[in-house]
Amino acid sequence: MINIAVLGYGTIGSGVVEVLNTNGESIKKRAGEKINIKYVLDLREFPGDPIMEKLVHDIDIILNDPEVQIVVEVMGGVEPAYTFVKESLLRGKSVCTSNKELVAKHGAQLLDMAKERGLNFLFEASVGGGIPIIRPLNQSLTADEIVEITGILNGTTNYILSKMSDEGLDFNTALKYAQEKGYAERNPAADIEGYDACRKIAILSSLAFGMQVDFEDIYTEGISKITYNDICYAKSMGARIKLFASSIKEDNKVYAMVAPVLIKANHPLYSVNDVFNGIFVRGNVIGDVMFYGSGAGKLPTASAVVADIVDAAKHLEKNIWTIWSSKKLELTDVNKVKHRFFVRVVKQENIKDLVQQLFGEVEEVIVDTILDEYAFITSMQSEEQFNQKKENLQVLNAIRVRF
Amino acid sequence: MINIAVLGYGTIGSGVVEVLNTNGESIKKRAGEKINIKYVLDLREFPGDPIMEKLVHDIDIILNDPEVQIVVEVMGGVEPAYTFVKESLLRGKSVCTSNKELVAKHGAQLLDMAKERGLNFLFEASVGGGIPIIRPLNQSLTADEIVEITGILNGTTNYILSKMSDEGLDFNTALKYAQEKGYAERNPAADIEGYDACRKIAILSSLAFGMQVDFEDIYTEGISKITYNDICYAKSMGARIKLFASSIKEDNKVYAMVAPVLIKANHPLYSVNDVFNGIFVRGNVIGDVMFYGSGAGKLPTASAVVADIVDAAKHLEKNIWTIWSSKKLELTDVNKVKHRFFVRVVKQENIKDLVQQLFGEVEEVIVDTILDEYAFITSMQSEEQFNQKKENLQVLNAIRVRF
Repeated sequence: MINIAVLGYGTIGSGVVEVLNTNGESIKKRAGEKINIKYVLDLREFPGDPIMEKLVHDIDIILNDPEVQIVVEVMGGVEPAYTFVKESLLRGKSVCTSNKELVAKHGAQLLDMAKERGLNFLFEASVGGGIPIIRPLNQSLTADEIVEITGILNGTTNYILSKMSDEGLDFNTALKYAQEKGYAERNPAADIEGYDACRKIAILSSLAFGMQVDFEDIYTEGISKITYNDICYAKSMGARIKLFASSIKEDNKVYAMVAPVLIKANHPLYSVNDVFNGIFVRGNVIGDVMFYGSGAGKLPTASAVVADIVDAAKHLEKNIWTIWSSKKLELTDVNKVKHRFFVRVVKQENIKDLVQQLFGEVEEVIVDTILDEYAFITSMQSEEQFNQKKENLQVLNAIRVRF
Repeated sequence: MINIAVLGYGTIGSGVVEVLNTNGESIKKRAGEKINIKYVLDLREFPGDPIMEKLVHDIDIILNDPEVQIVVEVMGGVEPAYTFVKESLLRGKSVCTSNKELVAKHGAQLLDMAKERGLNFLFEASVGGGIPIIRPLNQSLTADEIVEITGILNGTTNYILSKMSDEGLDFNTALKYAQEKGYAERNPAADIEGYDACRKIAILSSLAFGMQVDFEDIYTEGISKITYNDICYAKSMGARIKLFASSIKEDNKVYAMVAPVLIKANHPLYSVNDVFNGIFVRGNVIGDVMFYGSGAGKLPTASAVVADIVDAAKHLEKNIWTIWSSKKLELTDVNKVKHRFFVRVVKQENIKDLVQQLFGEVEEVIVDTILDEYAFITSMQSEEQFNQKKENLQVLNAIRVRF
């Protein structure tokens, strides 16, 4: 029997308990031993819930109990999670976590601590909810040099964009739907401004390239400026707008970016709609692979946490090798990165001439029902060049084009 | 340094050598040590190829060399691969293989042999080419009870079906294209009759359910009966025809089947086109996940083989737990399995009445340009029921419907 402690009895914590109860028999087979929840830590009380028997309010009870071999941190947020996780490792306990803030900020250090002690620090659930991506990156794509990793990593924004597109809604109405469904928080900034996707691509990039990618260094733009007109233009091009979180290696340097992009049906992430997530990986020998599934939700996320618990149980005395050095990866200045841009500007006299003066030949995009705008796609240019040129126009919106 | 021997210098074998040469530095980092190809076994000579230095024609040289710690079997076919692999394990060498025939037939036994000796028998490349699926099934989806595993597992047939659909070709012309491109063998039966997909779903099913699924027990139907008219009807329904290899758990029993099916855009495998493969997995807690990538090809397959070599190198003295008992899984009699069927019959007098007598209410499917056929979709019925009823009609083709 392997004793574990679950820190946090919120959505994911209660999901972990549920999964261990529901699939206990087959999990035992795979882990080699029964996984026993000895403690659940939470400040709250849960009257009537059978978990009360195991509930403790004091982390020291868990830290001081040598019987606890695996600590499951599903509280979220950097503190006190960081302190609790560090202390757990110091006391010889492996840690599984779903906490993207913690992993993005302290992943390299916590992995080192685990490695030094022959323990494990596992975090499959921190990116892509239930989708297996951390373990495949670490253990399956080991023959490749990763050239690109691009994900639709935030279900809320993907739901909003899908809803806008499918039902012809404007951004605010779609956001309200997402909030009603429980997909978006009352304060939705972390999702819609791209901060959540940013932390997740920081984690994936650090693993893909083996060095620390700080989330603060990643250019991040959300979807709050996307309007229904953007969607109409996208449709007229046979394209969709998706919030991409990308790390791409070009000329031996990596650039990282979270931003809405236009893609067409030939992109593997085109069909990733609603609350689903998808992660596209390009390797120099494997070519393109893609992983798809529920990027959030109680049980899918808990499934990934429990898979980590099983792995930790199978490797109680053997560190699972993960390459993520704390040495910082120098990212390419995003201003130098080149894209084609889809641009909507206010129609004014001689607008076509003005655009041509600035951008040379462009591809016009026409939607019959939108009369007061002029829309076009530029040729490849750096962010810097584009930003200078657009000063001369009344730009309504600009979206990077990935086709 | 870890010494390996590669058995077979065909497409995949030379790919393995190429990947180890191309990405040697990063592979060394991940494996912890340099991977050194000490021998390549092949009956042929390769004059001018630097591999000649390492080429041997006698397996005993490899088996008798204690320095060889990992044997990479990429010859294909059951014999002599089976004998070579067994002997390698008996001599204390771990084995990585891409050989689906070998794994489908002897996987359970070879895994047992490896486990008893603290060695590893790894076969990521045997299904889905470069797509990580074996390792995720074994190590990532461990919290779940698998409810369904369905794959587009054969790139050749998927290419032929995509080509027929995109370019309006009949089956034989599309097959000829596939042969010209090198996707299909001169004798294409293994692909187009579904035998290849059958072996692969046998492997996936054995892993998903932890017991032996014999490929001989899997109902297998290829795509050679699919005509351009079927494609036209599919299009008129907004559907696509795909060769599915499926194992599905219903009422606690599993049925397995390889057959063409009709799916619509809401199915995660709908966008898996051309030579790509996709594998859809449904778990009781994770929900739906999907893995997508190149299902064949020299480098993608070699990438998966080399990832196994890295894993074997990291686990030289620790068996990676895989649950695949040699105990046979009793499959549901496929005659009892229920589907809706899309049926094309020769138009004759009172055909609608006749169909209604047999099948009750059906959904008619109409293609304006096809006048001499009557097409419809039945309600759910067992294969047995359907086969009885269809005796009364001049059936041109019948395809199972998965929407």
